Amino acid sequence: MAEKSIYDYRVEPHEVDFTLKMTIPNLISAVLNTAGRDALGKGFGVDDLLANNHSWVLSRMAVEVDRRPDQHEAYRVATWISEYGRLLSTRNFEIRGEDSRPIGRAVTEWAMIDMTSRRAVDLSWVGDSHRDALVDEPSPMTKPVKIRNVIPSEEMVHRVAYSDIDFNRHVNTMRYIDLMFDMLPVELPACEEPMRFDLHFMKECRYGQTLTVGCEHLDRGARYEISADGEYVALRGAVEWK
Amino acid sequence: MAEKSIYDYRVEPHEVDFTLKMTIPNLISAVLNTAGRDALGKGFGVDDLLANNHSWVLSRMAVEVDRRPDQHEAYRVATWISEYGRLLSTRNFEIRGEDSRPIGRAVTEWAMIDMTSRRAVDLSWVGDSHRDALVDEPSPMTKPVKIRNVIPSEEMVHRVAYSDIDFNRHVNTMRYIDLMFDMLPVELPACEEPMRFDLHFMKECRYGQTLTVGCEHLDRGARYEISADGEYVALRGAVEWK
Repeated sequence: MAEKSIYDYRVEPHEVDFTLKMTIPNLISAVLNTAGRDALGKGFGVDDLLANNHSWVLSRMAVEVDRRPDQHEAYRVATWISEYGRLLSTRNFEIRGEDSRPIGRAVTEWAMIDMTSRRAVDLSWVGDSHRDALVDEPSPMTKPVKIRNVIPSEEMVHRVAYSDIDFNRHVNTMRYIDLMFDMLPVELPACEEPMRFDLHFMKECRYGQTLTVGCEHLDRGARYEISADGEYVALRGAVEWK
Repeated sequence: MAEKSIYDYRVEPHEVDFTLKMTIPNLISAVLNTAGRDALGKGFGVDDLLANNHSWVLSRMAVEVDRRPDQHEAYRVATWISEYGRLLSTRNFEIRGEDSRPIGRAVTEWAMIDMTSRRAVDLSWVGDSHRDALVDEPSPMTKPVKIRNVIPSEEMVHRVAYSDIDFNRHVNTMRYIDLMFDMLPVELPACEEPMRFDLHFMKECRYGQTLTVGCEHLDRGARYEISADGEYVALRGAVEWK
């Protein structure tokens, strides 16, 4: 059994909004980058997997943010894998300030796909060969929820461009999250209250496709459904402030 | 007289495109973040100026990129101020690989504005009180050019949203650059040839405004004019690959 890995960061000026606190999308970005760093350092990062024509793909994520750290504030992200299922592995995160008081936490579920077929592969062999990377501590919050029946009250259209895509020519997770947050009244992402965000991927989107971001506005949040070329639902999301 | 300051970086996986090389917008972002870090460390960063209701505003920039560094590659950015004019200060950059071979270079010109009037203030006092921060070495490339008479052959409309704005509720420079690069045929930003980019600001854009990005496509590049609410020209840009 392994220990949690800890990564230190500082809130950079380009990561804050007009409240001079880190934006939630940038905090989520730090969480996802930590996942990549940790997997890379442990020998099962995207670079290693590509040698076998495999890659990690984020399937679901849930994030809770208690408070947004200030510009220049130091914070640390602890991460650990608690479980390898047959199709999904669970990676957890705790975000704390320098005083070790909690800032937030996250649970992510990752599939491994074959790059040619774009289909999930059986993770049993990873569970076997990387069992020593597991940490015997449960997820720090309830797992990502499955989001259904979004009834959009507003829609926004976005054509996938160069700045939206990753090494794989697919839309990167952060751009989806930015598109979602951009449809909120600006008071919500800039407010001080604790919040929760869930994301639930169904299918990838590619360079040149046209996305429709459907948003169902709620009292203190929203639910989303993003579809591609009017043909399929790519992902759903939900965000709520207390 | 001072020496150049040097900052070390590494190309992060989220900064590369599908060629697995750092995107030019992300390299420009590293340059601009270096400007902020260096000014902060030397006591004339945005944080210090805000105490006097002042802020730095980028007026013009020019960047040359010889090659885009690879994912995980280490690189260093050297920066120095060569000149304080009455209205503009000139900050220079050299980007080099670990082997110290050049990757690119940049020249930026900054105005100091009064936050209430949003007008430029006289920089003479900065030149006096920070004269010891000057480095006696000229800019590493020709200064940013003034761009005129853009005749767009394509237009794109973008409503300014939460993810576009900075601590000041104005559109951040990187978003403008992304909007420009997104209108190019994807082969250009992903190609291997050396390039030059110029940016020339006239007026700021704010949250909620609607931008029109006009693009005049050239053989190996483009010229841009971005206007706000159909009322004024906010900035112009030009990009060209060899």
